[in-house]
Amino acid sequence: MLRHCLRTFVCLSSTRGFQVPVKKTHKFYVKLIGGGTVLCQLSLFGFGGSRKPDVESADTWMAKPITDLQYLKENSHDMKCRVEAMIMRIQAEFCHALEKEEEEEGGKKFLVDKWDREQGGGGITCVLQDGTVFEKAGVNISVVSGFLPPSAMQQMRARGKKLEGDKVKFFAAGVSSVIHPKNPHIPTVHFNYRYFEVEAENGEKQWWFGGGTDLTPNFLVEEDVVLFHKALKKACDGHDKQLYPKYKKWCDDYFFVTHRGERRGVGGIFFDDVDEPSANKCFDFVTSCADSVIPSYLPLVQKHKKDTYSYKEREWQLLRRGRYVEFNLIYDRGTKFGLYTPGARFESILMSLPLNARWEYMHKPMPGSKEARLVDVLKNPRDWI
Amino acid sequence: MLRHCLRTFVCLSSTRGFQVPVKKTHKFYVKLIGGGTVLCQLSLFGFGGSRKPDVESADTWMAKPITDLQYLKENSHDMKCRVEAMIMRIQAEFCHALEKEEEEEGGKKFLVDKWDREQGGGGITCVLQDGTVFEKAGVNISVVSGFLPPSAMQQMRARGKKLEGDKVKFFAAGVSSVIHPKNPHIPTVHFNYRYFEVEAENGEKQWWFGGGTDLTPNFLVEEDVVLFHKALKKACDGHDKQLYPKYKKWCDDYFFVTHRGERRGVGGIFFDDVDEPSANKCFDFVTSCADSVIPSYLPLVQKHKKDTYSYKEREWQLLRRGRYVEFNLIYDRGTKFGLYTPGARFESILMSLPLNARWEYMHKPMPGSKEARLVDVLKNPRDWI
Repeated sequence: MLRHCLRTFVCLSSTRGFQVPVKKTHKFYVKLIGGGTVLCQLSLFGFGGSRKPDVESADTWMAKPITDLQYLKENSHDMKCRVEAMIMRIQAEFCHALEKEEEEEGGKKFLVDKWDREQGGGGITCVLQDGTVFEKAGVNISVVSGFLPPSAMQQMRARGKKLEGDKVKFFAAGVSSVIHPKNPHIPTVHFNYRYFEVEAENGEKQWWFGGGTDLTPNFLVEEDVVLFHKALKKACDGHDKQLYPKYKKWCDDYFFVTHRGERRGVGGIFFDDVDEPSANKCFDFVTSCADSVIPSYLPLVQKHKKDTYSYKEREWQLLRRGRYVEFNLIYDRGTKFGLYTPGARFESILMSLPLNARWEYMHKPMPGSKEARLVDVLKNPRDWI
Repeated sequence: MLRHCLRTFVCLSSTRGFQVPVKKTHKFYVKLIGGGTVLCQLSLFGFGGSRKPDVESADTWMAKPITDLQYLKENSHDMKCRVEAMIMRIQAEFCHALEKEEEEEGGKKFLVDKWDREQGGGGITCVLQDGTVFEKAGVNISVVSGFLPPSAMQQMRARGKKLEGDKVKFFAAGVSSVIHPKNPHIPTVHFNYRYFEVEAENGEKQWWFGGGTDLTPNFLVEEDVVLFHKALKKACDGHDKQLYPKYKKWCDDYFFVTHRGERRGVGGIFFDDVDEPSANKCFDFVTSCADSVIPSYLPLVQKHKKDTYSYKEREWQLLRRGRYVEFNLIYDRGTKFGLYTPGARFESILMSLPLNARWEYMHKPMPGSKEARLVDVLKNPRDWI
């Protein structure tokens, strides 16, 4: 359950902050029929549109939130509450969108596990396993708080955070997901969006956002990768044109399987320590990114879920899944750190692992094959737009 | 390829050394028909028997040794040469024994890869993949030398090694193997025996041995585990009755999947930094351990290779293989450190991974089932003898 916060703790990259220019947005109050008065934000940049406060979608959520719903509603000025409502909505929308894809194929639904964290907070883990379209799909939210373990403090200090004293309070909330489809022609997708607050012993507070979305196909279909990246770029560009290139590169650098000299997939965006220009602007940006998951990924599911595939293509998919396991267990800082933390809910951390994976000694794709074409792009990341 | 040496580098355990009492051994020269004069050592303790020098078995080895054979023959006083010859013999004997088990089932043979290490030395990786009896069997030797990377020096110093200066020469030779059989009723076995020399800038030299053998069954068959441990105990007892209990415990402690609170398997022996009472005694002890792999494991292969098994038993085996991957990629210090080292031959390091593995969210064996009985013993290690 500490995955989100700990992923943030241990990110050692020093690229920090971004400038979001002031946007032309119109805020106005509307009276909804049968509803209360809600703040709508209409963006002129195409990434938002009119948006109800996230907490208004509570009737669609996968479970009751970690924090009391009434409290969330009454404290929408508190970023902790806003983020919790946002990740609850993102989790629900994504799970429902995936269930819709399963619908005509047997109608397998997500299993919903709500769990408490002894030291404070909890999470909701949704897993759809052994479906017709999705071999293993996990969508997790967690909202946790307490005191930072010493190792986490050390790593945050190494990253430039100023934390006075030995007792540092923290709050972390995030949504994370990994989708492993059954059909080898549908890529795997991963995303994770999170918010972090720390309060040092002297009362000094810091906060930041982190996250990203990245795609791991088994075969290279260029137009699919372009569609995916375009959706992410659109989400970023609505805030600052510099964000997509910067976070695209960060993603290529982060998801690197060092010993193989190849990336995990064809990238996406990745960022951490985002705390400028304001909490509201950061929240809007991260919300845009989280909202771009469905339009960036679902079209690929719909396009390929009926594709025929051979035994050889399935075997290649399983080998690629093995590489996915290698990245997650060897390099992913959040996974590793989470597992090393006593009391971590390892089932939620490891839900990212595929149902099946395979390792062959010295497997090399045939030169010129479509498998080799994929490996080439993993070794030499491209600009897709 | 750095697996052996690096496993040694990074072992942080501080239990060191052991006392091998002086044994009653008779050494005598014999003239072999058609051969040269060789030194035979006859032990009265049942673990050795009369033994030809390892280098005399060169015609059975899987490939030419890393060091020129003539040099090995002429320098049998040099521990580096003795160890290389010993691990070459162990690799060959074990590979031939496994091939014999495959023989009546299709006769699949080991693929032999001899590789060079740019910075000095090399290795021989033997893999039998997708056989009838063995799903993936890897037996690797490596003989490498050069200068210690700074991170390795740091960790060795943390372990109590005195290393003056920045340029520390090292030599490492070892054999390591992981056997994943196809039939879920045959356990997986792993062993690794290695020798290490370092020379600091001031000319000060240190050497030590390390190693171990451990068993990972999918189902608990007590008499199998007892047979396995008895063979290891016999190998240890021939040198010092205190060794088996000490190294048995070390094994239980080392192969621990922390986040699951369970051991990887039913243990065996594990040790490191063994450098007492003399290089010769240590070599004899480690050779006895390496020689005990076949008598401890092959009977289990022969006993179970024709066992029938169900789809459910195969699925359980694949889930256990997933746990094996977790240990190797998250906790095994040698694997991790090897993979983080630039230029490491990752295919030899990762040959320990199974051909197939599986992860199910929240899988729990039925209480009282044979699967639950295994998990119980992984959580609560027993004394087997």
